[in-house]
Amino acid sequence: MTRTIVASASKEVVIGFDQPFCVIGERINPTGRKKLAAEMEAGNFETVKKDALEQVAAGATMLDVNAGVTAVDPNATEPALLVQTLEIVQDLVDVPLSIDSSVSAAIEAALKVAKGRPLINSVTGEEEKLEAILPLVKKYDVPVVAISNDETGISEDPDVRFEVARKIVRHAADYGIPAHDIVVDPLVMPIGAMGTAGKQVFALLRRLRDELKVNTTCGLSNISFGIPHRHGINAGFIPMVIGAGMTSAIMNPCRPQEMEAVRAANVLNGTDPNCQTWIMTYRDHKPAMAGADGAVAAAPAAAGGRRRGGREARRAQG
Amino acid sequence: MTRTIVASASKEVVIGFDQPFCVIGERINPTGRKKLAAEMEAGNFETVKKDALEQVAAGATMLDVNAGVTAVDPNATEPALLVQTLEIVQDLVDVPLSIDSSVSAAIEAALKVAKGRPLINSVTGEEEKLEAILPLVKKYDVPVVAISNDETGISEDPDVRFEVARKIVRHAADYGIPAHDIVVDPLVMPIGAMGTAGKQVFALLRRLRDELKVNTTCGLSNISFGIPHRHGINAGFIPMVIGAGMTSAIMNPCRPQEMEAVRAANVLNGTDPNCQTWIMTYRDHKPAMAGADGAVAAAPAAAGGRRRGGREARRAQG
Repeated sequence: MTRTIVASASKEVVIGFDQPFCVIGERINPTGRKKLAAEMEAGNFETVKKDALEQVAAGATMLDVNAGVTAVDPNATEPALLVQTLEIVQDLVDVPLSIDSSVSAAIEAALKVAKGRPLINSVTGEEEKLEAILPLVKKYDVPVVAISNDETGISEDPDVRFEVARKIVRHAADYGIPAHDIVVDPLVMPIGAMGTAGKQVFALLRRLRDELKVNTTCGLSNISFGIPHRHGINAGFIPMVIGAGMTSAIMNPCRPQEMEAVRAANVLNGTDPNCQTWIMTYRDHKPAMAGADGAVAAAPAAAGGRRRGGREARRAQG
Repeated sequence: MTRTIVASASKEVVIGFDQPFCVIGERINPTGRKKLAAEMEAGNFETVKKDALEQVAAGATMLDVNAGVTAVDPNATEPALLVQTLEIVQDLVDVPLSIDSSVSAAIEAALKVAKGRPLINSVTGEEEKLEAILPLVKKYDVPVVAISNDETGISEDPDVRFEVARKIVRHAADYGIPAHDIVVDPLVMPIGAMGTAGKQVFALLRRLRDELKVNTTCGLSNISFGIPHRHGINAGFIPMVIGAGMTSAIMNPCRPQEMEAVRAANVLNGTDPNCQTWIMTYRDHKPAMAGADGAVAAAPAAAGGRRRGGREARRAQG
């Protein structure tokens, strides 16, 4: 059984097919958040701290930490800023972290100070990347996210993306890195732009689990890019990828609809024993009122029992 | 490709792996609805009519019609009442119907007056049932729901349930009934009572699709029987069964959370071309307000795009 172990200072988390879905909180990331980028550059980490606390409170299993505040000369500034951000976060919350950077020097600087066993995010199939990141994975004995693109970009052909993943796993093996420390991101395309994006990724996830035997992750909300009511699409996507074998995702845990989908899928996937987390979370749940988010208080709560009663009654009648 | 064709007076619907999920509205069923049973016995069909209109308006593909108002002597009363109910419903709404009864004489009486091509609900693996129902399926050239239990009851072993389904398909073939006119219900156990119920049914659905090549259905809300916030579990279950190959379900279409899950899964499964139904339904969707159904208006709507931006930006940086 594939087990990817990550850890904070005192807490170990296993990513695996028989484990609750690993929610990697995406919020601590200044990409596309100008205000946050400006704050971090100015040495103001209040939003970072707030995002860390809120995501953990919302149920994040891990937190992604990205300090890419500038595309101008990241090599010069990012290592120190990533170290600073990471230290603030790991002093504040006790969950495993994902070190998210495109700057290899920043990743290594963060690895040097990280407590526990962080995840590196990420390597790709590009030769230059492989040569820069895999030695760090080996040296620091940590797992790594492997994104299924290479020098040629992101292929629309899922078979090509699978082969890139296989190539990364093989390269890693050359460094003595086991497949269970590679968490493959098969790359999720927006369903609004490519109608087959869902079926592609479900098939890829099954192959990654069955053939490469690796854990998997993705930037979850990509799937709903550009279409209305994205949270509804995301919330439908989550159970489908979990059913297809995905074991983690980089996502926003502060979205209740998406987190509810994660918790429901854990129940249904058999990774929430006795529905314990579900019951703890929703035992006092009140149905939505009419008008709220399109919900109506229609049928009685016991309605769902009818079908079963019907079938059983029917059998009794012969 | 397996295609089960059902029809109303003027509308044909295909149930199939490449089709939008077929939602069979469950509401017209007096089992466990004492008030409705009393009304129907008294010749009052106002609730039946309301349920028919509401379910179709909510997006039901088909409607199940059950007139089992009594367990005392259903053979005496049910045929006439089922005919009356069916005629009222088919005169009111133009969707295919599912004739739902445990009384063979009631099923045949309804078949005689039904317009289009209804679905019979149901046959089981019990010899007596097979001998009563399969000749009707053949004579009236209609599809039938096949429930995976037999004289020994409902097995907790999914392999046994699969074999019951296989037995029914073989018996049907002896009558000249093709597999595409058998819609197997693999039987969904409550996840609260059996933690493996979800994984069981996902595995069964794949086998039913790949080995027996049949369409499938279930009494969907059984899965959440006895646990809090059932709609959340149901809404997570729907994308998972659709991902596993289920092509229809008997469910309550008046539940917006469940119907949203159906529509999202259709988008993701590639059966809502260009997200057309999704966009039509949700283009004016307003996010839930804080406090409504536990939702919070937290991150900006564009947050989900970040991850993609991040990955692309990173690749550009090299």
